[in-house]
Amino acid sequence: MADTQTNLAWETLLDLSASRPGPLHQRLAEAIRVAVRGGRLPLGSALPPSRVLATDLGVSRWTVTEAYGQLISEGFLTGKTGSATRVSWSPEPDERRGVVRSHPGHPDPRRHPPARYDFSQCTPDYRAFPRRKWVEAIRVAAETAPFDRLGYAQPGGEPRLRTVLADHLDRRRGTRVDPELMTVFTGAKQAMGALARALYADGHRRLAVEDPGSPGLWEPARAAGLELVPLPVDEHGVVAEALAGHPDIRAVCVGPAHQLVNGAELAPERRAWLLEWASRVDGLVVEDDYDSEFCYDRPALPAMQGTDPRRVALIGSMSRALTPTVNVGWAVVPRRWLAGIQAEPWLAATAPALNQLALAHFLESGAYDRHLRTSRQRFRARRDALVAALARELPQARIGGQRAGLHLVLDLPPGVPAARIVAAAPAHGIELCDIDQLCLAGEPDPGRLMVGYGNLADGQLAGAVAALVELVREGVDEP
Amino acid sequence: MADTQTNLAWETLLDLSASRPGPLHQRLAEAIRVAVRGGRLPLGSALPPSRVLATDLGVSRWTVTEAYGQLISEGFLTGKTGSATRVSWSPEPDERRGVVRSHPGHPDPRRHPPARYDFSQCTPDYRAFPRRKWVEAIRVAAETAPFDRLGYAQPGGEPRLRTVLADHLDRRRGTRVDPELMTVFTGAKQAMGALARALYADGHRRLAVEDPGSPGLWEPARAAGLELVPLPVDEHGVVAEALAGHPDIRAVCVGPAHQLVNGAELAPERRAWLLEWASRVDGLVVEDDYDSEFCYDRPALPAMQGTDPRRVALIGSMSRALTPTVNVGWAVVPRRWLAGIQAEPWLAATAPALNQLALAHFLESGAYDRHLRTSRQRFRARRDALVAALARELPQARIGGQRAGLHLVLDLPPGVPAARIVAAAPAHGIELCDIDQLCLAGEPDPGRLMVGYGNLADGQLAGAVAALVELVREGVDEP
Repeated sequence: MADTQTNLAWETLLDLSASRPGPLHQRLAEAIRVAVRGGRLPLGSALPPSRVLATDLGVSRWTVTEAYGQLISEGFLTGKTGSATRVSWSPEPDERRGVVRSHPGHPDPRRHPPARYDFSQCTPDYRAFPRRKWVEAIRVAAETAPFDRLGYAQPGGEPRLRTVLADHLDRRRGTRVDPELMTVFTGAKQAMGALARALYADGHRRLAVEDPGSPGLWEPARAAGLELVPLPVDEHGVVAEALAGHPDIRAVCVGPAHQLVNGAELAPERRAWLLEWASRVDGLVVEDDYDSEFCYDRPALPAMQGTDPRRVALIGSMSRALTPTVNVGWAVVPRRWLAGIQAEPWLAATAPALNQLALAHFLESGAYDRHLRTSRQRFRARRDALVAALARELPQARIGGQRAGLHLVLDLPPGVPAARIVAAAPAHGIELCDIDQLCLAGEPDPGRLMVGYGNLADGQLAGAVAALVELVREGVDEP
Repeated sequence: MADTQTNLAWETLLDLSASRPGPLHQRLAEAIRVAVRGGRLPLGSALPPSRVLATDLGVSRWTVTEAYGQLISEGFLTGKTGSATRVSWSPEPDERRGVVRSHPGHPDPRRHPPARYDFSQCTPDYRAFPRRKWVEAIRVAAETAPFDRLGYAQPGGEPRLRTVLADHLDRRRGTRVDPELMTVFTGAKQAMGALARALYADGHRRLAVEDPGSPGLWEPARAAGLELVPLPVDEHGVVAEALAGHPDIRAVCVGPAHQLVNGAELAPERRAWLLEWASRVDGLVVEDDYDSEFCYDRPALPAMQGTDPRRVALIGSMSRALTPTVNVGWAVVPRRWLAGIQAEPWLAATAPALNQLALAHFLESGAYDRHLRTSRQRFRARRDALVAALARELPQARIGGQRAGLHLVLDLPPGVPAARIVAAAPAHGIELCDIDQLCLAGEPDPGRLMVGYGNLADGQLAGAVAALVELVREGVDEP
């Protein structure tokens, strides 16, 4: 392999002035990608150390390491501790392998072009994931687990994690969780899939859901054979009483802590109505407790599960409060559903035992509470800054749903169609959630935007708001 | 919480002389369990430091830490760094919680009573899992991953892992893997499930399988709606030509490197026949490459996938060569099947991105090759010792299938029924695989035992063989 490192004029090879938008590290990554694809950086060639390239290009070292990291994760580069970062991809058939190599990654439309500003609604703050603390928890788990816990995870989940999680949920969410009735999954979708299969096996054929609501939970329910029946949503949460018109429905999935789109809390009388309904029809309320950890202005209402553990199945995960890579979700069900949701282990994957034990340690050590406290402060400050900036820049717009969660809703000035804003966003380097995709049967409010801030870097907030405001103003100007 | 530590006579409280069999650390764990269940160690009481208890009881410190670790993982105890190990379970209703706590773990019949000697066939050597190296790989992955890789794993798997794994398989298994055609799962079962659903969606209704074979792959295939059709097995592997009698079958699942029960390699002419058949009927050969890394006396035959990547779908995982807690498996499919196996992501969980990136690093750094080399040496030595001991103690028995894998087959002396041995094993503290459970339609050879040694501690080998021999001799003596 030729080491081309010293002979290249990197600032010539990598053209960062290209018209492609996006932060510098993404432009650098793209410039390297182009050079690799075009054969100017052949397979095996070494890239300069990050500090050297940073100096050559007049950028921060972070920019370079971030770009290298991205390309390593895509398979374009390889990096080994103690040796140079090298090109690991070739546009030519690789004769050593006898197969033609094409782009190493499956195309992922969400990443092309990369958005400069992430206003999407379902992302936590990946920058703030406590990497070191999590690795430390993995280390403790690996060093203290008896060797037979390194095998397949126990059916239902590691008893220790279930005990610790039950305590945590009882303490923070007002639940009454019996660890025996908790099943650990890889996330909330897997949990919903297992629960939906159990419902189907028990004779259920229809599941009522909030509309708009959470397609991430609709998919596994549909895959299990359940027909989804939409319930309308207003400022008091899901209109529970609409169930009275569906005598054939005995299961409903709701998000009482924070309605996914408008951020509403389910009103106490509707909670009571739902529980009474579930008792009357011998039914089940599936409670999606998806981002209740983030309540800013008052404590979150306790979970419905705590009011009636015999009628509520609680679904949750660590994907929002930590990251999906923790890979742990759960379902806590009334006893009669336990056998059903554990019936098909080959369909519903369990989180790796090591991750489960690490999470138990992370909770027990207090690291999770500290992370939540810090996250809540960070998100509250970010929300306050976002609300203030939007109120200043778009005084005609109305802001709602900001009391909890990781997004707010923005009712645009009259005459600005949200759909046009959403459609134009990618070209402006903005990622926005399309409420239309969260609607099952109803029509989205034509003037309403969802503005997520979970994965919006604080340093980008001013620029992000400016870009969004420009986008909205263009929407006003057009006919 | 009362700290009862200094006032207890531990050697009185914990009766290790009980009649229950098993290694000392399991007896200690059980003694503590009994004391907790009986209320003699109330909720919150502190246990002595492991070194102190070891001295009190006259056992090794390892015995105590192992017992504590087991009970922590079961939820009976909690251990925090820097403070005492405490009882975290109570037989009484816990008034702070408002619910009655029962046994914290789901009952797992495989663990009661714990087997002294593990001759089961599907377990790797958990003791030898390179915990530190794996944690180091996780650490490197966590520190070098761009923050957006900490979210949901990419559909199909991390490109970097796919590239690295493809190289690894090509090098060690003679495959020709295009990383684009690889999909990462949490294990081989999940991969089989996705592939079976793709087959079903394509109109397949029957899948031919080896009999005896691998129920772990049968379950997901059945769950996908496929009917399993048994093919007989002989000393040259699966009798492939039997497919000629099934004109309606166009898919078959085989383990050519090492037949699960008798350890046979699939004969070259049968490999050729299968590939020709697959071409002729426009069919698919699913290659279960489950323990091909462990070949002792000659190199493993290359995977069939390398001969015809257009007709073979390769399924594999790290569960055998590392442990299931690594949580990574894969399927490499002909291009036409790719969309099919990635169609239902909410059914087939993907391994966490961090685990995938850690595994990529583990492979790239050479740690995996080193682990395999050490493992192969260890397993070969263990196999040699086991074969020698069995040949010496049971000269009338015939040993086979020992050239590869983590088990051998033992044809018992005439007149000793294997079923009786298997049935009596648990009472002797021995875990044995019941071949009957690996049979789909055929009857197991009545005189054949499977003897796994993957998870048999080397220090226990003499005792394990003695116990097995005693069991077999009792089988001879009885009418």
